[in-house]
Amino acid sequence: MKISGTTRVFLILGDPVAQVRAPAIFNHLFEQHGVDAVLVPAQVHPEDLEGFARHALKAGNIDGLWVAIPHKTGIVSMLDRCDALGRATGAVNAVRRNADGSIEGALFDGIGFTKALGTFGIPLAGRNALVVGVGGGGVAIAASLAQQGAGRVALYDSTPGRTEAVAARLRAEFNTEVVSVPTADPAGYDLVAHATPLGLKKDDPLPFDVSRLDRDTAVVDILMKNQPTPLVRACRERGIDAHPGFEMMVQQAPEYLSFFGFDDIAKTVQADPTDVRALLTQT
Amino acid sequence: MKISGTTRVFLILGDPVAQVRAPAIFNHLFEQHGVDAVLVPAQVHPEDLEGFARHALKAGNIDGLWVAIPHKTGIVSMLDRCDALGRATGAVNAVRRNADGSIEGALFDGIGFTKALGTFGIPLAGRNALVVGVGGGGVAIAASLAQQGAGRVALYDSTPGRTEAVAARLRAEFNTEVVSVPTADPAGYDLVAHATPLGLKKDDPLPFDVSRLDRDTAVVDILMKNQPTPLVRACRERGIDAHPGFEMMVQQAPEYLSFFGFDDIAKTVQADPTDVRALLTQT
Repeated sequence: MKISGTTRVFLILGDPVAQVRAPAIFNHLFEQHGVDAVLVPAQVHPEDLEGFARHALKAGNIDGLWVAIPHKTGIVSMLDRCDALGRATGAVNAVRRNADGSIEGALFDGIGFTKALGTFGIPLAGRNALVVGVGGGGVAIAASLAQQGAGRVALYDSTPGRTEAVAARLRAEFNTEVVSVPTADPAGYDLVAHATPLGLKKDDPLPFDVSRLDRDTAVVDILMKNQPTPLVRACRERGIDAHPGFEMMVQQAPEYLSFFGFDDIAKTVQADPTDVRALLTQT
Repeated sequence: MKISGTTRVFLILGDPVAQVRAPAIFNHLFEQHGVDAVLVPAQVHPEDLEGFARHALKAGNIDGLWVAIPHKTGIVSMLDRCDALGRATGAVNAVRRNADGSIEGALFDGIGFTKALGTFGIPLAGRNALVVGVGGGGVAIAASLAQQGAGRVALYDSTPGRTEAVAARLRAEFNTEVVSVPTADPAGYDLVAHATPLGLKKDDPLPFDVSRLDRDTAVVDILMKNQPTPLVRACRERGIDAHPGFEMMVQQAPEYLSFFGFDDIAKTVQADPTDVRALLTQT
């Protein structure tokens, strides 16, 4: 990777930022495809997020921002435009400066999830889905399920009252049946997405009663640590089709590339994400 | 060069920025010495310079800025501290965030020149020097001559009245005899530095009458284009010791490295600047 004065620059904003994998993945892709661009980390503190982002995007050769935790929601207020998933969830993964100078954001977490369903062979169209946990990940998944053709999306969260407003926003944005449910009972659903932190700690209970799952329900647990997760193990012991959420991250890579105008690389990566999978698993 | 979330980031600010050589040089040195740091370009427009620089230096992993044309003077107003050369000239080449959060700048253009004199075998201590042209380069050279031990520094500029204030500032800062002179007549000086744009265009006159140079006067022409420059050629035809200013840029590299805390690399480069010379001449 040769960086010179002509190199186009992208920044990934996080706080902390040391843990981000995106520079390793996307700089590898830029180099492999002969693109004179680089993605570098910026540890931006929340109180300086808007100022940093605004001034960075005024630079002539800084074309966009990858947005990592904790900035995915905080950066939305500075956007001139936003995709439907970002609008519905109030969070984005990426921000770019358009040719007309406007600042536009988009969310890919959820589309990564629904594309991962495809790679798992799990159908989505018309299906009845339950999302357990409506923090950032759960809301993104619910939004993408609603947008991408689920018949019905049910939202459960252990914090009372958290799901109603989310359900209303998603219904309004996607014209899909999105409902708030008072229990994580998984009986009767075609698909269950787990998006709570349960399973991070050793003595965590399972997020729901796996004995209540129908035999043909598919389960995806987006918890990244402790693979295979306690939930995935419990499901598989009962013969339930259960998947880790890792592929959700893999499937986001082409979305970032398209958003920033690298359509050719996006197509190549979508057709064969082997390199991205390998780079994401490197410690 | 592997960029990850842990990489320390430096930016070089210019407008335009496509022509800068510093990323090629310093990223090569970082990589060669196993330093997890990167220098990337940022095309910052003058009206956004202070905002961009302030917010960039608030990021936890952005440790400093290389400052290229046209920002060397404009960035001085945001500094909390500045070295003597920067103070005397009102311009800096580099800005860093100190451990206490203060923003400090330093100028290396002039020290690059006086160190280059050493590599040319041109003595400086106590000598009588003439600087022809007091734009940014000339002022930086005059300041460094005054600081590094010249006996007397005379300043000439074709724009009337431009040299008096500069001479007064340098006298005050360095307690050296710095005077404004009304003519570029080079007779009687030990050293003449040429720092005007004359020689860029084909039909430019020589900046001074080379027939008036003493036989043992040394001449340095900092014009970078059209090597060897018309002035250097005219001097050499008369047997006068004349040098191009290229080495001035080479000798700045260790100064940047020390300023940003890379003392070991600075020492290595100072001892053997072969790589830096080669990278600076690559087109």
